[in-house]
Amino acid sequence: MSEIHYPGGVRPKGEIARKTPTKKKKNLTIAAGNRGMDFETEINQTNDYYREKDLAVFHKRPTPISIVKVDYSRGAKITEAYFETQSTTDYNGIYQGHYVDFEAKSIRGKTSFPLSNIPPQQIAHLKAVLRHDGIGFFLIRFATLNRVFFLPASFVIDFYEKRERASIPLEEIEAHGKEITAGYRPRYDFLPILDELFLK
Amino acid sequence: MSEIHYPGGVRPKGEIARKTPTKKKKNLTIAAGNRGMDFETEINQTNDYYREKDLAVFHKRPTPISIVKVDYSRGAKITEAYFETQSTTDYNGIYQGHYVDFEAKSIRGKTSFPLSNIPPQQIAHLKAVLRHDGIGFFLIRFATLNRVFFLPASFVIDFYEKRERASIPLEEIEAHGKEITAGYRPRYDFLPILDELFLK
Repeated sequence: MSEIHYPGGVRPKGEIARKTPTKKKKNLTIAAGNRGMDFETEINQTNDYYREKDLAVFHKRPTPISIVKVDYSRGAKITEAYFETQSTTDYNGIYQGHYVDFEAKSIRGKTSFPLSNIPPQQIAHLKAVLRHDGIGFFLIRFATLNRVFFLPASFVIDFYEKRERASIPLEEIEAHGKEITAGYRPRYDFLPILDELFLK
Repeated sequence: MSEIHYPGGVRPKGEIARKTPTKKKKNLTIAAGNRGMDFETEINQTNDYYREKDLAVFHKRPTPISIVKVDYSRGAKITEAYFETQSTTDYNGIYQGHYVDFEAKSIRGKTSFPLSNIPPQQIAHLKAVLRHDGIGFFLIRFATLNRVFFLPASFVIDFYEKRERASIPLEEIEAHGKEITAGYRPRYDFLPILDELFLK
């Protein structure tokens, strides 16, 4: 309903796109602190590829932003706003008729994935998705190791709810997940994993 | 990946929530120009109800915003940003294992629904959803008439692509859609329509 909400607030066609956090292209020699962003770009490119080839339709949900002030005298310029926490995961969509929902996380540690990276509402959301027969998973990148894993949401939820450990050890991720070798296009090809784990 | 992107940018717990365009509560005697907002609130409340009762999991995608300047000296305060057009529809989620995608539109006209309310990328997106065996539809509110209709995306896409008329006449909407009587909770109960049209 953007047309009704933001008269004049939509960027005029032809105007140069402004930088947004989700669209930045980073070069390859980025600082470690920015690797999360880079992973997001790679996932977005993977999703773009799947849509172009009409293999699946996945989109990143926009980052929710809480708007405080808008200057309508200048074409709906937002002058005060704050980032909010996503109440769901970052990505969802459809593959072969199935609802698919996932979250991508890039971390710097080498030995385990700290559960503190997953807010409770993402666990609650993914539990709801599984209850309604959707497919849920995490894509976890160990940036320093340059390794990416597909982890089913069911495994992460179980681990999270047992509360025995604050981090999932790499060995557990290797045992219960699937490693994804980086490619050119798509960057991280996870559809074969969906086929194998959920659609056989 | 918000934790990595916005260090300190997430609203601290306990702080009073700031107003956002998607969360405003309007009273019932709103001006006609704001009825689109009110309809959005009603749809959000309907989705909240379905989630609370665990009947379905639908969420509104956040409004995409292009961020130009962030003041990190003050806890990631966004000081310049602009509204962007949603590249998909506003709502999606899962119902009984099925991927569901829909758009809600409130208009003031009394005789027809102008197709100019639907940006081309929403048509393209809904076509992709249908190709991948998802469920797609529109919820259309004739604010002045106080009538709400469920219209399958397939009908809207056909009408849109024929390009014979710039608006869908109300009689066509009555013939090809389903009118939804407003209730208390949920406000607009469209799950029985999904059952009837798609899940029999």
